[in-house]
Amino acid sequence: MSISPKGSFITFEGIDGCGKSTQAKLLLDYLNDKGTSTILVREPGGTRISEEIRQVLLSTDRRELTHRTEALLMTASRAQLTDEIIIPNLEAGKIVIADRYIDSTVAYQGGGRGIDIAWLHELNQFTTDKLLPNITFFVDILPEEAARRKQTESDRIEEGGMDLQSRVREVYMSLAEKAPNRIVVMNGYESTEAIHQKIIEEINRRNIVA
Amino acid sequence: MSISPKGSFITFEGIDGCGKSTQAKLLLDYLNDKGTSTILVREPGGTRISEEIRQVLLSTDRRELTHRTEALLMTASRAQLTDEIIIPNLEAGKIVIADRYIDSTVAYQGGGRGIDIAWLHELNQFTTDKLLPNITFFVDILPEEAARRKQTESDRIEEGGMDLQSRVREVYMSLAEKAPNRIVVMNGYESTEAIHQKIIEEINRRNIVA
Repeated sequence: MSISPKGSFITFEGIDGCGKSTQAKLLLDYLNDKGTSTILVREPGGTRISEEIRQVLLSTDRRELTHRTEALLMTASRAQLTDEIIIPNLEAGKIVIADRYIDSTVAYQGGGRGIDIAWLHELNQFTTDKLLPNITFFVDILPEEAARRKQTESDRIEEGGMDLQSRVREVYMSLAEKAPNRIVVMNGYESTEAIHQKIIEEINRRNIVA
Repeated sequence: MSISPKGSFITFEGIDGCGKSTQAKLLLDYLNDKGTSTILVREPGGTRISEEIRQVLLSTDRRELTHRTEALLMTASRAQLTDEIIIPNLEAGKIVIADRYIDSTVAYQGGGRGIDIAWLHELNQFTTDKLLPNITFFVDILPEEAARRKQTESDRIEEGGMDLQSRVREVYMSLAEKAPNRIVVMNGYESTEAIHQKIIEEINRRNIVA
């Protein structure tokens, strides 16, 4: 596809607990307050079919669900979200913010689950019809810090879970190195407000908002 | 993966209404009567997760479900079926018969829906970890004959449906030409019993059953 240049597509990425969802919502409010028409979508889910797929992903014993099935269900959900929500809204000139998108597949299914990363890039291209975000904010913190912030659930984050988050973070860093124009690394140790201000500066610097 | 040579994997393919499901069941009964341990699986479905995916595929308005989502859900269902049922049974030395497998994706999502066929081959390889059937029976009839046999539903088979089945059949024929050792074309105009006998002859000729 050739994406209409009317809208702008902004994605947020990072390991679980890095603070990206908070930043996505703050940016949504900021942009809507500025009078732009902005929507926020969250994966997996966001359409009727994607929500049904989410149920399959969540209702199931993880030992039963294989890594390949997980990758295909995650991307099936994204394919529907992209065609049904993201592309039509971009074509209508809106700003679309996504809390996780293609980079999550590479980081989690590649770094986390060990699926071939080159192939996951191809799977992403098919899934999205080659739609790329205009800009991606990767909010970076160490897995240990993410675990510390999730105090109420810290007992669930076991050594294996920490290893997985470390591998996921490494792939995110590698992606950011390879696509420095698209992916902006935010220091997740700064305050919520400081990160938010830097995101707004970056958005304005790039003339992403008309 | 490197599939254990113990078991044998037999698949059936063809357009809707060609008679392949009847042949798959006849072969299942024949092989079990011979004392072999044989199972029959049917797509999409066959595992708890695959059945849940089937519900998403079937419960949904087809105008809403995009072609790419359909392809990813179909292959997600197959990935689970392959890892959970097909491979363990083959490794246990059993014969596995599948009513539709990888060729259906190429024929229906490629020929029928227009998705790039070379890419669908890659998607199949990922989905199945490169597991190929030992033999595939493609039961070939013209779409017009398939429609005629489905007399009670013939009003539902419209011109568009017939066109789609024609494109699906063309891709099946092309696949059979390119893999003549694996794919055996059966003349679907012969009697059920005559086709069944030829399938048994082919199975015996290839020493597929120990």
